[in-house]
Formats: sequence, C-alpha cells, structure tokens
Amino acid sequence: MSSFVVGNGTSPGLVSIETWRSEPGSALRLRDDVLSVEEPLEIRIADETLAVTMRTPGHDAELAAGFLFAEGLVRSRADLGGIAHCGRLGQEGARNVVNVVPAPGVHVDVDRLGHARRGTLTSSSCGLCGRLLVDDLVARLRTPPSHPPFEREFIAALPAELRARQPHFDVTGGLHAAGIATPEHGFLVVREDVGRHNGVDKAIGRLLLDGRLPAVGAVLVVSGRTSFEIVQKALSAGLGGVVGISAPTSLARATAERFDLLLCGFARGGAFNVYAGASRLAAA
Amino acid sequence: MSSFVVGNGTSPGLVSIETWRSEPGSALRLRDDVLSVEEPLEIRIADETLAVTMRTPGHDAELAAGFLFAEGLVRSRADLGGIAHCGRLGQEGARNVVNVVPAPGVHVDVDRLGHARRGTLTSSSCGLCGRLLVDDLVARLRTPPSHPPFEREFIAALPAELRARQPHFDVTGGLHAAGIATPEHGFLVVREDVGRHNGVDKAIGRLLLDGRLPAVGAVLVVSGRTSFEIVQKALSAGLGGVVGISAPTSLARATAERFDLLLCGFARGGAFNVYAGASRLAAA
Repeated sequence: MSSFVVGNGTSPGLVSIETWRSEPGSALRLRDDVLSVEEPLEIRIADETLAVTMRTPGHDAELAAGFLFAEGLVRSRADLGGIAHCGRLGQEGARNVVNVVPAPGVHVDVDRLGHARRGTLTSSSCGLCGRLLVDDLVARLRTPPSHPPFEREFIAALPAELRARQPHFDVTGGLHAAGIATPEHGFLVVREDVGRHNGVDKAIGRLLLDGRLPAVGAVLVVSGRTSFEIVQKALSAGLGGVVGISAPTSLARATAERFDLLLCGFARGGAFNVYAGASRLAAA
Repeated sequence: MSSFVVGNGTSPGLVSIETWRSEPGSALRLRDDVLSVEEPLEIRIADETLAVTMRTPGHDAELAAGFLFAEGLVRSRADLGGIAHCGRLGQEGARNVVNVVPAPGVHVDVDRLGHARRGTLTSSSCGLCGRLLVDDLVARLRTPPSHPPFEREFIAALPAELRARQPHFDVTGGLHAAGIATPEHGFLVVREDVGRHNGVDKAIGRLLLDGRLPAVGAVLVVSGRTSFEIVQKALSAGLGGVVGISAPTSLARATAERFDLLLCGFARGGAFNVYAGASRLAAA
C-alpha cells in the first residue's frame, strides 16, 4: 500500500536543539537535546477541509485514514481512492495538508461529522449536544467478534514490548505510543505521536490501509491513560481489548463493559487490573 | 465569585468500582478501586452551543471561562454576566451543560472560533487551515509583562509542590494536573482533570473569575508534556513561565522563544531543563 503514502523524508518527527540544564549548586549548562515535532495537520476529504489536528509529522496518510475510520466516515480500504499530501513536497505547508480521495462512486457524508464534532448544533434542551457526541460515536459500535481467549501472560508482557518499540520516546521522553498486537504475531504496528489519539489513529489507519480490519483477536496497547475515545476507536476497529499503562476513565470502562471489550490498566511489572471484559481472558 | 459557580456536590470527579487484579502466579482477585469520571461538557454562550469537551465534572464554570478566554472570545471578567449549568440540578444532563451569559452590551464573536476550530474553512491552497489555526491563536499573544526574575530554587520546587496538591491523582493515578504559582504566594490554584488542556483552562478560568488576570510574575505548572496549546494558554493569561514535568514539543518551544516565555521541562529531583526564556531566571 505504499502508493497511499507520500514520504516525509527521514525522522520528520524529531528536531535537534540546544537547551540549558539547571542542577542544584551548579551554573546553567548548555547541552544538546532532541524534541518531538508538533505541527498542525489539515485533513481534507475530496479537497474539503474536515479537521485540523496537532500531530507529529510522519504517517500522515495513516492518521487521516484512521481518523476518518474512527469517525465512521470511511468503513474500509475499499472506500479509499487515495491519500496524498497537498501540493509539491518542499512547498511551504505541503507536508501539513493531506487530502483523502474517496474511491469512485463512494460518497463520504461529511455532515455526519458536522453535528457531533464541530459543535455547530444549537438547541435549548439540556445535555443534547454532549450526549449526541457520545451517542453518535457509540451507536456505530458492536461487541468485538469471538476470538480465542487472551492468556494473562500475553497481556502482562505487552507494556514492556511496546516500550521496546518506542525509539523516539527513548530520545525525547515526550511522546505517546500506541500499538496493536496479537498472541500469534506480536506487534503488527506501533506508532508514536505527541497526541494520544493520533498514535491510535495512525496504528488503526495502518491496518485499514493494509486491509486488515476488523482486527479480530488483537489488542490495542497505549502508553498512558485510556479515555472514552480510545475505547471507541478500538471497538470501531473490531479489536478484542485495550491495555493501558495507566488508568482508564469512568466512561472508557462503562463503554468497554457495555460492549464486552477487555479493558486492562496499570499494566506494569507483570501485573495489571481488569476493568471490563474479563471473560475474554483465558481461565487461570 | 461564588455566584458564578453552580455546585456539583462533593467529589463529582471520582467513582468507586470493583476491578480484577491479575498478578503472576495467582488467580484473579476482586478488589475495590476508584476511577476518574469522564463526561462530555457542552459549553454554550448565550444559549448557543460552542464546543463539547470530554472532562472531569467539577469546576465547570472555570473550565468554560478559561476555554473562552484562551480562544480570545472573552477578555476579562467584565465580559461575563454569569455562568450557570443548564436546567435544574438533578435533571438528566443538567450537570453536563454550562451556559455563559455575556455581560450587558458585550458581544462575543463566536464566528472567530468558527474558522480556526471547527475546520469549516475550505480552500484549495496548501497549509492554509492549519496555519490559520496556529496564526490565529498566535496573533493575539504578547510577550509577558516584566516581573522580578524567578529563582531557580522556586522553579525546581514546583513539581513536588504540585504533586502534593493532587488528591484525586493519589486515589486514581489517572488525572492530569495544572497549577499556577508565584514566588510570594505559592500555588494560587491547582486543578485536576482527565484532559490535559481542561486542567489548564480550569486553573486560568479560576484566576479570570477572581479578576486576577493577567497573572504577572506567576508560572503555570503541568503534570505532563507541554504542547503548543498549553504555551498559548499561558501567554494569553500573561503568565511568565511554564514548567512541565515532562518534555515540551517543538512548537511549544518555538512559541515560548518567540514571546520570551520561560519554558522549563523535565523538572524532577531539583533539576530541570530550560527551553526558552532563560533571561527570566535570576542569575546563577
């Protein structure tokens, strides 16, 4: 699927700088450092601007595909005609605009996004818009397909394996990571990004572009907290579980419980908590 | 300013649950746990829906005020007539809608938000929308006012002091925190939220409602990474610095440098890095 991706060159996600180090009892010392790049990506569909997200450059086609998929605007790879950066490479701004061309005959209903995401809905009743946002996202979700139960050892080993696949975090200490893994094949994809949700969109977008969705029997592993949106994205992709290094939120847990998604948190040192979907684990 | 805030009862931000604990070599054990609440807040201005944000309930008036301030829609407390939850307390959804009433004669230009935030702008040129978003946010920023230089000891002590003021993190391990402190008075406000930016909006919103902006000579302390938006919000509030426990992004640093904002990161164990605005620190 390399034709989908317009390259950005090597490591567009890192930038070298000089910084001052302050330590007790010493004068400031100048030293070399590396930061994660954050730039706005404008996502267009058929040349119409749909959203702007602050992200780490690189894997932009995956990000666009994963974002559109999670929002329900694109259902499979067959809906996509192509994804390309705007203009010529090297042209100012070109690397920060990506245009998604629907496949011939596919109509993408951009107005679906309008109500829930853009907040343009006006109403005098209470709670309508916020509930619409959640209800609209939840309405498309389904209980993940059956799959062989996950061994607890498989779940427990995922955080360290994700950590070993975060080269940019090693350098900058400032990136989120998301990966998708199966018991048979280990990690299918790992993506790092300054934005929590972007890493998830990139990982799921990669599987979408590879025609590998729904990802039955796979789990999403995230380096931080698990919010509602991360659970929603995992369910959209047919994943069987979400494993977070830190805590889930109340709405993440309630949504996982409702759709019988395995939801684990505080996965550290071989131990973890199970917040929902415990029936998807192999019996002790 | 208590009249601005409609109470939510005690600790609306926490929920008690039961969870399964998995440890190597043992069967799953059921135990009590506490999660951070995540719910959508619909922010209205003069009864028109402006945005929906996933947040931890509590301090919603501060969140709305801080959000509108950071977006440039509200300039001071004098622009605000009042902020109240929609409907009656106890009514379904009431706690998740907050309506901001402008002061008499104040016109809030909601369309300003429209272009940059809602992504409704259509254009065939490259990079326009994403750059507009950033340019629009940056255009209103100013170099922070002069203030006495910050002692390095003051900066170095902030992370531990913020950590000591995160009661909900102690219980859940799953919340971001943002605080605003001065050398004279210590922390003026600390807020916890499942959303990084919400904590910052709540803290700045509190100062706005108290008529304490611009917060000259104060610094913003955040529990995680420092993104562009956090620097933008700090500059909007007239703060002299931002101190992060983790790394800043490239755009956070570039923006801080442009406006001579002190930007520190990796503030741990008495040491920290200075990414911008080193002239705002006291000599040696």
